Amino acid sequence: MTLPTPQAIAELKAALPDAFTEDTNDMAPWLTEWRGRWTGHTPILLQPRTTAEVQKAVEICARHGVAIVTQGGGTGLVGGQIPFGEVLLSTRKLREVRDVTPLDDAMTVEAGVTLLEAQEIAKANNRFFPLSLAAEGSATIGGVISTNAGGTQVLRYGMMRDLVLGVEAVMPDGQIFNGLKRLRKDNTGYDLKQLLIGAEGTLGVITAATLKLYPIMRSRCVAFVGLESAAASIELLARAKDETGGGVEAFEMMKRLGMELVLKNIPDTREPLETTPPWYVLIEITNGTVGGAEAQMERLLEVAFEEGLITDASIAQSDAQRAQFWRLREEHSAGLKPEGGGWKHDVSVPISRISDFIDEATAAVEAFHPGCRVSCFGHVGDGNLHYDIIPGIGEDIPAFIARWKEGSQVVHDVVAKYNGSISAEHGLGRLKTEEVKRYKSPLEIQTMSAIRKAIDPQRIMNPAVLF
Amino acid sequence: MTLPTPQAIAELKAALPDAFTEDTNDMAPWLTEWRGRWTGHTPILLQPRTTAEVQKAVEICARHGVAIVTQGGGTGLVGGQIPFGEVLLSTRKLREVRDVTPLDDAMTVEAGVTLLEAQEIAKANNRFFPLSLAAEGSATIGGVISTNAGGTQVLRYGMMRDLVLGVEAVMPDGQIFNGLKRLRKDNTGYDLKQLLIGAEGTLGVITAATLKLYPIMRSRCVAFVGLESAAASIELLARAKDETGGGVEAFEMMKRLGMELVLKNIPDTREPLETTPPWYVLIEITNGTVGGAEAQMERLLEVAFEEGLITDASIAQSDAQRAQFWRLREEHSAGLKPEGGGWKHDVSVPISRISDFIDEATAAVEAFHPGCRVSCFGHVGDGNLHYDIIPGIGEDIPAFIARWKEGSQVVHDVVAKYNGSISAEHGLGRLKTEEVKRYKSPLEIQTMSAIRKAIDPQRIMNPAVLF
Repeated sequence: MTLPTPQAIAELKAALPDAFTEDTNDMAPWLTEWRGRWTGHTPILLQPRTTAEVQKAVEICARHGVAIVTQGGGTGLVGGQIPFGEVLLSTRKLREVRDVTPLDDAMTVEAGVTLLEAQEIAKANNRFFPLSLAAEGSATIGGVISTNAGGTQVLRYGMMRDLVLGVEAVMPDGQIFNGLKRLRKDNTGYDLKQLLIGAEGTLGVITAATLKLYPIMRSRCVAFVGLESAAASIELLARAKDETGGGVEAFEMMKRLGMELVLKNIPDTREPLETTPPWYVLIEITNGTVGGAEAQMERLLEVAFEEGLITDASIAQSDAQRAQFWRLREEHSAGLKPEGGGWKHDVSVPISRISDFIDEATAAVEAFHPGCRVSCFGHVGDGNLHYDIIPGIGEDIPAFIARWKEGSQVVHDVVAKYNGSISAEHGLGRLKTEEVKRYKSPLEIQTMSAIRKAIDPQRIMNPAVLF
Repeated sequence: MTLPTPQAIAELKAALPDAFTEDTNDMAPWLTEWRGRWTGHTPILLQPRTTAEVQKAVEICARHGVAIVTQGGGTGLVGGQIPFGEVLLSTRKLREVRDVTPLDDAMTVEAGVTLLEAQEIAKANNRFFPLSLAAEGSATIGGVISTNAGGTQVLRYGMMRDLVLGVEAVMPDGQIFNGLKRLRKDNTGYDLKQLLIGAEGTLGVITAATLKLYPIMRSRCVAFVGLESAAASIELLARAKDETGGGVEAFEMMKRLGMELVLKNIPDTREPLETTPPWYVLIEITNGTVGGAEAQMERLLEVAFEEGLITDASIAQSDAQRAQFWRLREEHSAGLKPEGGGWKHDVSVPISRISDFIDEATAAVEAFHPGCRVSCFGHVGDGNLHYDIIPGIGEDIPAFIARWKEGSQVVHDVVAKYNGSISAEHGLGRLKTEEVKRYKSPLEIQTMSAIRKAIDPQRIMNPAVLF
């Protein structure tokens, strides 16, 4: 990796005279990962406002062989956006909404538009843009594409990969790839955008994207459900999909321990049900017909209750109650924090194996570290669990945290046994690039390296990340 | 390109003693494209029955640097499956259904399972596999993945790319890529399967795939509609999506000329409507609730009729009538044939531009070849038109066909102006690999070539196809 030379920096400043800063105070907010896990450094932060400016920057870096880290909203959870000496290129100031064509169910926005703004632009055009995640007010379109972000609506609408019709990117040699098609079908060779999506900034700088839009649903119903086991939730999920013809928009599982920590540590929260079951599910159904979601939810829960598949349920009766239910799920990470943190995992396994996975992983971590406690929640409709291990009550927290890496390998080994993924939706970044090598085949690593070398032979794009 | 040497052929025969043929009669059916456009030749047809046998074959070819054409069901429309001297490797005999896990909405089948069989396996497990196309009785899973096939259900469920969770493939050096994950989420580096999907056999031999399954819909409603213009159909499509919350499964447009040729040339067909409008649409709505599709269709058509957006409509009242309606659409290609054939195109443009595209392309071809007639039908819900030009009545047919290439360029130039695709769902194959170079940027061609070289440095995989 070649760090920026004085000559390269001088050329960058001359080429982008009002789109850079070297001021350490200005740069500071963009150099620390928001959970505080990494604090990096860079000689220069570039903040181009147009694709042409991005191109100039990349051309100069390419000519000098100098490394670049591209950053969007800076909300990534695996440190892929933090430079350690590389030029930091932010795409936050690429802000144009290039077009919205409701008849195509498509809109083209630049990389720095936030996810929340994208949702709002869609809504203003009587359409729905589905990707939704906690950091949506800061996360940018460029960032969520580069990391193939997930979130809470994946079950029905897919990951970010599934929501991209086309991308524009500056490639590692400074050429512009104009792939901003509004087409649903285009079989003319390899689908290059698929490589850029989820590449974590290693194959080019995404500067704009054409996104898929969807109709606005006319009914929406949210319920909180209590169950005796994780296995019951999987059976309930299958029934919910069947009952709604694929209209389940979210299906989020939570274990009682996580709920207890939310109720204990987060103000203004209260029990969602009259009982305190060992497992919960939050279900959201949407439907194209007024009243349709409510009718489907009622049928689903009535039969499930009669057959003993669920033990308790409450259907949100107002927008406020819907928000309260969702808050209980969304505060699960925050609810853990006051306990001193823990070993966190973003894993996926086949849906049918979730219950077995939880049992086996829990036995394994309890054997590895007796007394630890397992919290476990997540997008179970996608097989994606945030599987977190926290210290026993009264345990020495720094000593516990010090075993994170080893403890994670215990969890990840069980994930691998179930043919799962050790990074379901967060990506690899600086956190997991090394770890994943334990599980990927040499062929996969070689093939990815060969593709990268073909596209970025100097390896100037986010060189510390991926293979 | 290196053609098979006697030494390579001898090794292939020794390695696969009961899985090859050199008999010209046995090979003949697999050497002629089914429309008769290409007849190729090969010294040997390999018909392995296991991934291990495919691996042996590829290893030997790789060692000798000998070229391979991989073939599935042989139903491709662009000649990508026809060898001209290369080893012909058929994956039709890879027939195992490896697993079906309804709770995962997933099944893993080998490459030689046909599309129709895949649909039936899903159905037997109370699930739906959506990809559907005319050749589904012969087309294989390996083939439809390699060509990223489309068909009639793309509007709701996407192309084949969208239906693949994982693939197993033998790479050009003979290594096996085991990517058969049943995961919905896996962000651990470049998504290699995306490269193999739609690569037309140029990056490896797909031997098995894990496919997505969907719930079976509880109601289904099909209507035939008459309209005054193509533009009206686009407006109707937007309303149908809105009314159903994305529950439109098919939205197929037809021009009166194509309907006339079906009625004239195909036995046992009759007018679908009492009137004879200039444009038709076949709409299929599905819904998770019993009676839901019918209710949505009625509301949609009632309002559209009142507002003058449609001029006539008929809702199928039985399975038989539904089949009759679909037959009118499906026989459109066959209806053209007795007229002597024509210049055929499989193009896509943004949905919002379809009407303008048709006007401009029609004016251009009429200027290029006065008296020609334009038929035009297709998956308009995806922006995909089968835009066919047939000779004027009484015109000399061979002379007309001789102008195909030039005539197609007239059409394709208009497609390019609308930022469309000259191959929406059929791929490039031998038919369009050269033609598409007129429209792709040098960067795209270079990048695809570089990726191919990284994965298949000897260029032994379907060397005549793609870049």
